[in-house]
Amino acid sequence: MIQIAVMGYGTVGSGVVEVIEKNKEEINKKSGEDINIKYILDLREFPGDPYADKVVHDVELILNDPEIKIICETMGGLKPAYDFTKRALMSGISVCTSNKELVAVHGPELIEIAHANKCNYLFEASVGGGIPIIRPLNYSLTAEKIDGITGILNGTTNYILSKMEKEGADFGEVLKEAQEKGYAERNPEADVEGYDACRKIAILSSLMCGKNVKYQDIYTEGITKITPADFVYAHAMGKTIKLLAQSKEKEGCFYAMVAPFMISKSHPLYMVNDVFNAVCVHGNMLGDSMYYGRGAGKLPTASAVVSDVVDCARHIGKVIMCFWDSQDVALTNIDQASRRFFVRVALEKESQALQVFESVSVIEAPIEGEFAFVTDEMTEKEFNEKAEEVGIIGRIRIEE
Amino acid sequence: MIQIAVMGYGTVGSGVVEVIEKNKEEINKKSGEDINIKYILDLREFPGDPYADKVVHDVELILNDPEIKIICETMGGLKPAYDFTKRALMSGISVCTSNKELVAVHGPELIEIAHANKCNYLFEASVGGGIPIIRPLNYSLTAEKIDGITGILNGTTNYILSKMEKEGADFGEVLKEAQEKGYAERNPEADVEGYDACRKIAILSSLMCGKNVKYQDIYTEGITKITPADFVYAHAMGKTIKLLAQSKEKEGCFYAMVAPFMISKSHPLYMVNDVFNAVCVHGNMLGDSMYYGRGAGKLPTASAVVSDVVDCARHIGKVIMCFWDSQDVALTNIDQASRRFFVRVALEKESQALQVFESVSVIEAPIEGEFAFVTDEMTEKEFNEKAEEVGIIGRIRIEE
Repeated sequence: MIQIAVMGYGTVGSGVVEVIEKNKEEINKKSGEDINIKYILDLREFPGDPYADKVVHDVELILNDPEIKIICETMGGLKPAYDFTKRALMSGISVCTSNKELVAVHGPELIEIAHANKCNYLFEASVGGGIPIIRPLNYSLTAEKIDGITGILNGTTNYILSKMEKEGADFGEVLKEAQEKGYAERNPEADVEGYDACRKIAILSSLMCGKNVKYQDIYTEGITKITPADFVYAHAMGKTIKLLAQSKEKEGCFYAMVAPFMISKSHPLYMVNDVFNAVCVHGNMLGDSMYYGRGAGKLPTASAVVSDVVDCARHIGKVIMCFWDSQDVALTNIDQASRRFFVRVALEKESQALQVFESVSVIEAPIEGEFAFVTDEMTEKEFNEKAEEVGIIGRIRIEE
Repeated sequence: MIQIAVMGYGTVGSGVVEVIEKNKEEINKKSGEDINIKYILDLREFPGDPYADKVVHDVELILNDPEIKIICETMGGLKPAYDFTKRALMSGISVCTSNKELVAVHGPELIEIAHANKCNYLFEASVGGGIPIIRPLNYSLTAEKIDGITGILNGTTNYILSKMEKEGADFGEVLKEAQEKGYAERNPEADVEGYDACRKIAILSSLMCGKNVKYQDIYTEGITKITPADFVYAHAMGKTIKLLAQSKEKEGCFYAMVAPFMISKSHPLYMVNDVFNAVCVHGNMLGDSMYYGRGAGKLPTASAVVSDVVDCARHIGKVIMCFWDSQDVALTNIDQASRRFFVRVALEKESQALQVFESVSVIEAPIEGEFAFVTDEMTEKEFNEKAEEVGIIGRIRIEE
């Protein structure tokens, strides 16, 4: 019997308890031993809850109980999760977390502490909810030199963009509807400005290069400026618009960014709609592989946390491979990154735009008073200079 | 330093050598020790090959060398691969294989022998080439009760169907072209009749239920009867036609089959085109997740074999979890499975068809002299009886 504790009895925490109860048979079989939830830590009381008798308010009870071997940290936020996690790991208790913020900020330190204490800090649920992506990166693609990761990593923005495309609706309108349905938070900034996707690609990028990619260094642009007209153009080009989180290694330079991109029908991420998420991984032998599923939600996220519990249960006293050094990676400024751009200018600027951007592909679409085109490949810096010279309505990057 | 041997220096075997050479740094780091290829077993000589000095013709050299800890079996076929693998495992040498036939026929026995001798029999490359699917099933989805697996598991047939769809071409025509390009074998039966996909879904189904699904028990239908007219109808319905390999658990019954299905645009497998493969896995907590990539090819397949080598290298003397009992699963006859069917009959049978099938959705498409429709949900048995009564031109199952 392996005794575990759940810290934080909110959406994901209660999901963890539900998954462990519902799939007891499978989980115990795969763990090699029975898993038992001994404590649930939460400040609140849960009268009438079937697990009310396991709820405790004092973390010391958990951290000082030598029977506890694994903790599920489903509290979220940096404080007090960071302190609790650190103390648990220093006592040799493995921690499985869904807390992307904590992983993005303190991942390498916590992994190092875990390994020094012959336990593990696992975080499958921190990226892509129920999509298995951390374990495939760490255990499956071990024969690859991974040089690119591109993902749709935020369900809220993908839901909004899918709706805008389908209904020709305005960003603000769809956001409001998404908030009413509970698909978007009341304060939607973390999602719509790309901050959530930024934390997640920081984690994946770090695993890609084995060093630390700081989320603060990642260029991040949200979806608030995307308009119905952009989708009309995208449609005319056989493309759609997705918020991509991306990390690439090219000739020794690391680039990472979050921004809306136009992608074509042949791109594997094209069909990832609504609240689904997906991650494309490019390896030098394998080419592209993709991992697709529900990026969020109580049970998918909880299922990922519990898969970490099973992994920890099978490795009590042993370190599970994870390469994520605390050494920071110097990201190359995206000014140096090259790509094509979709551009909209006022109709009267057509000839000036053609002169400044030289060779372009003109896009025909039923939008009045505008001239739209796709540039040749050029660096972001070069593009920005030309765009400023002409004065543009908008631009969206193109992912090939 | 871990000494390994490669058995069979054909396409995959030489790919294994290439991957280990090219990604030496990553592979050694992830293995925790340097991997060295000591022998390559093949009947042929390879004069001028940079690894010519490692080529041996006598398997005894490998099996009797106590330094060898891991063997890559890339010979294919049952004989002599089965004997070599069994002897290696009995000596405590782990075996990593791309040989789907051997895994499908002797998988549980070889896994049992491996575990009894504290070594491992791994087969990531046997299904879906470079798509990590075995490891996600065994290590990632451990908190799930998996009740369905649906895959496009054969690159040749997917290439042919994609071409037929795009070009409106005939099966025979496209097959000939695929043979000329090397995408299809001279004797294409194993691919186009679904036998290859059948072996692969037998392996996945066995892992899904932890018991043995015999490939001989799986209902298997190929793509040879699919015509350009079928694609015209599919198009009119917003669908496409894919060869699906499928395994489902429903109320305690296990169904497994390989057959062409119509799937709609919203299905995650809709966009899997050309030589790409993908596997959809349904779990009771996670819902659908999907794994997508190159299903075949020298380097992707070799990369999967080498990922197994890394796993074995990290677990020398230890057993890696894999639940696949030798106890055979009694599959439920697909006669009992329910679904909707797309049906084509001669125009003069319209009223008879409407009478026999009762409630149907009529499909309008520019095909002369025919009447086409989709039935309500019914069992295969019921469908077959009605179809025989009416006399139909053809039918394709519909995957919802």
